[in-house]
Amino acid sequence: MTGACPGPLIDLAARAADAAGAVVRGYFRRPVGIEDKPDDSPVTVADREAETAIRRLLDVEVPEHGVFGEEHGTHGLDRDYVWVLDPIDGTRAFICGQPTFCILIALAHRGRPVLGVVDQPIAGERWIGAVGHGATLNGRPVRTRDCDTLRRAILHTTDPALIPPPHRAAYDRLEGTVGMHRYGIDCYAYALVASGHVDLVCEADLKPYDYMAPAAVVENAGGTVTDWDGRPLALGGDGRVLAAGNAPLHAAALGVLNRS
Amino acid sequence: MTGACPGPLIDLAARAADAAGAVVRGYFRRPVGIEDKPDDSPVTVADREAETAIRRLLDVEVPEHGVFGEEHGTHGLDRDYVWVLDPIDGTRAFICGQPTFCILIALAHRGRPVLGVVDQPIAGERWIGAVGHGATLNGRPVRTRDCDTLRRAILHTTDPALIPPPHRAAYDRLEGTVGMHRYGIDCYAYALVASGHVDLVCEADLKPYDYMAPAAVVENAGGTVTDWDGRPLALGGDGRVLAAGNAPLHAAALGVLNRS
Repeated sequence: MTGACPGPLIDLAARAADAAGAVVRGYFRRPVGIEDKPDDSPVTVADREAETAIRRLLDVEVPEHGVFGEEHGTHGLDRDYVWVLDPIDGTRAFICGQPTFCILIALAHRGRPVLGVVDQPIAGERWIGAVGHGATLNGRPVRTRDCDTLRRAILHTTDPALIPPPHRAAYDRLEGTVGMHRYGIDCYAYALVASGHVDLVCEADLKPYDYMAPAAVVENAGGTVTDWDGRPLALGGDGRVLAAGNAPLHAAALGVLNRS
Repeated sequence: MTGACPGPLIDLAARAADAAGAVVRGYFRRPVGIEDKPDDSPVTVADREAETAIRRLLDVEVPEHGVFGEEHGTHGLDRDYVWVLDPIDGTRAFICGQPTFCILIALAHRGRPVLGVVDQPIAGERWIGAVGHGATLNGRPVRTRDCDTLRRAILHTTDPALIPPPHRAAYDRLEGTVGMHRYGIDCYAYALVASGHVDLVCEADLKPYDYMAPAAVVENAGGTVTDWDGRPLALGGDGRVLAAGNAPLHAAALGVLNRS
């Protein structure tokens, strides 16, 4: 078990989210010309510029840390602390003008997420979870809820079609077991688990910058997040993620995923 | 073609949305006890109380009009003006703490929608469309966009599983033709069509209180909304709805839905 996340690093992550949010808001719902190429579409430009804004801050304040970013690559992955960045998670939501995309900023210590920020800059909602500090939404503590029965649980996934065929039957079995399922809101679903409105998120084919920040938020709000085999999430891994509001519900969902 | 919607009725609809929003905000993200029955869950209570708040205003100001509400039934459906109310469209989004549910208020004149309000009271976003007045988001004019090619178009539907089996193949054909599809945001998707961020919404099994307000917003923003046979929407109908940002795209989508 790793120690508490240093407070100044939480403050730094919050300032990084501020910097990214200022960029991203300027591109949201901006009209897209029919001639725009994917490389210079508003969402691509916003993604790149927001990551640059975050990295500029990290370069100045914690040059000794590594960075794993979606847009501008990686450096220093062998260092104790590595920042894991996805300036716009939920690119398609962003493109559609739907304010459920989020800025994701995580800090990994020796590979494990110790700090996560899930920030929705249009709604002005910021979830932060950090080891030793619990989890908050806009500064107010949040907790997962105590639903521990699959048949009462609410499950989210972005789109079942995103789950690769070898794993789809397991996902479908879980979807068929829960009380309610919903599609479509990417990382925002994890934040709703942290706040106690949703019980489960089950996804596959994710990258570390997709799951590290949500994992830190959910875990420090009282939830359990692992891969589909029950292993802790880390910078490596096969990208299958199961998040639950509490350990008994997580164990039950894991059992359904792995029932042969 | 019906004449312009009287301005005072637009103002009345806005005040009705204000009244409903005040109720709904008080119940959003309220913790739900494990013992809560569906009949007294926060969403059910919010739905009922918000419709009561709207009806109280209509009873005082336009007692000569009819009302078709989701929660408290209908009266005066034979009158020239009928208000069509869904205080919380997107009940499951509301339950999950996801701010994409909306308050829907429509006014039908001789069965056709002449005024619609799509209001997201948490984000503070209000779309209004009215015949002769165009469409607005928080008072600023909005227009649909000019994408007229299916392979570039973005399609929304809440969940393909909600489309009854006889119509599912037609929907799947359309989904397979468009450039991008997204699930999960109910009525909010129509508002994104009106604002020019999304091109198509295709759904089935809807009730008049689900589609009348969105239809008025999209139509008065420059879009086309009909059933899947190309007939205008009205208080009756089979609940299949196709909304498009412009007439050529609508015709193309209709062609795919009805290709045998």
